[in-house]
Amino acid sequence: MEIFWISGSPYAWRALLTLEVKKIHYASRLLEASKGEHKAPEFLALNPRGKVPILKDGDVALSESLAIMAYLDRKTPEPALFGRSPAETGQIWRAISVSLYYLEPVINRVVAPIFSGHTTEKSDDIRAAAKEVHAELQTVERTLRARPWLATATISAADIALYPFIELLLRAAGKDAAQSLDLGFLPLVETYPALASWQEQIRALPGYERTYPPHWRTSTAYAGSHSPAPVA
Amino acid sequence: MEIFWISGSPYAWRALLTLEVKKIHYASRLLEASKGEHKAPEFLALNPRGKVPILKDGDVALSESLAIMAYLDRKTPEPALFGRSPAETGQIWRAISVSLYYLEPVINRVVAPIFSGHTTEKSDDIRAAAKEVHAELQTVERTLRARPWLATATISAADIALYPFIELLLRAAGKDAAQSLDLGFLPLVETYPALASWQEQIRALPGYERTYPPHWRTSTAYAGSHSPAPVA
Repeated sequence: MEIFWISGSPYAWRALLTLEVKKIHYASRLLEASKGEHKAPEFLALNPRGKVPILKDGDVALSESLAIMAYLDRKTPEPALFGRSPAETGQIWRAISVSLYYLEPVINRVVAPIFSGHTTEKSDDIRAAAKEVHAELQTVERTLRARPWLATATISAADIALYPFIELLLRAAGKDAAQSLDLGFLPLVETYPALASWQEQIRALPGYERTYPPHWRTSTAYAGSHSPAPVA
Repeated sequence: MEIFWISGSPYAWRALLTLEVKKIHYASRLLEASKGEHKAPEFLALNPRGKVPILKDGDVALSESLAIMAYLDRKTPEPALFGRSPAETGQIWRAISVSLYYLEPVINRVVAPIFSGHTTEKSDDIRAAAKEVHAELQTVERTLRARPWLATATISAADIALYPFIELLLRAAGKDAAQSLDLGFLPLVETYPALASWQEQIRALPGYERTYPPHWRTSTAYAGSHSPAPVA
């Protein structure tokens, strides 16, 4: 199996984490977005949208992070990431849907202008979106206070689907340009302690280091929730 | 099983179609949104977001359309709506992801201002969104020219996930207020003939009539793609 990805893409991160959790052997194909490698003809032949992740497995070339996760779960059923009963499957997809419909869009509204250097012009909308993110994170925090994982007793696709967006949010919140906005996410261990513990559980997964965006290590924006030494 | 829904909700429509395709016996609980029944305490106890659909099945109360579809497929596996092989499962979730990420948001940008009477103020954004919808529908049309269903040889969750949004789009496009915008979706049989055939296949499903938004029958906005007599 080959996985094509770009450093820092939350969608690609989902695919990498799924591969690691399932201990699937894969060839990592890191594309350089700054060189336009994701818009090169050989990549567009795999995905005309020019987006990562793409999984290649023999004749199968598959785009879209959730599709790759579902494919890998069918192909390598253990550990089961989409539940072992109808009720578990339902709860996992419910939690994924909350990420998709209620968290991703508002996290993107916070993160995109900060990363693209439009913090000042967009400050009102960033603050409005941050408020919605907080409302959703309070629900997530309540869930994680009651149990260690989002949807079931063990790690599931719901945890993997949400996790990269939490990291992205925290990285944006740690940027210099975001400090004047006072977004209230950091330090996570104080604002959302159960979410911070959940973050540490995921960071402790075997193979996690291979999924971490390489370019985050060489810049100095966000120091993580617990560690005194910066992770990024 | 009980399904709580609101007439015209595309998310609820997905759940109803899944129940019908799987021939599951269910009790239909149609809520009157105009009376605020979806914000009543007994409903908020099932879903604090006050949104439909909600499925009740014994002890299980489940929100979010995709979660309900996945739950029903686990509980009543035939006909399989999420694939019979890893490759099928991947293709189905890829097609669902295209609906979720690339179609739903832009269709909502077309539909919401038309239904809420803001067509004039929002005409530029409606036109911009309609252009994006057309780009996506051209891809869908190419797919449906090659095979009768979106992702696999038989009906799948991908068809059910997209279908209500197509109906919603066409209904909005047929409203009087939308005529001056010249959105270019109607008549569907001329603009997207393969999509129109696919629409007819779904309309021909046993039990389809029970899923059709009741209040669409009593108003006169959209006449469907083929039929000379109005369906709605």
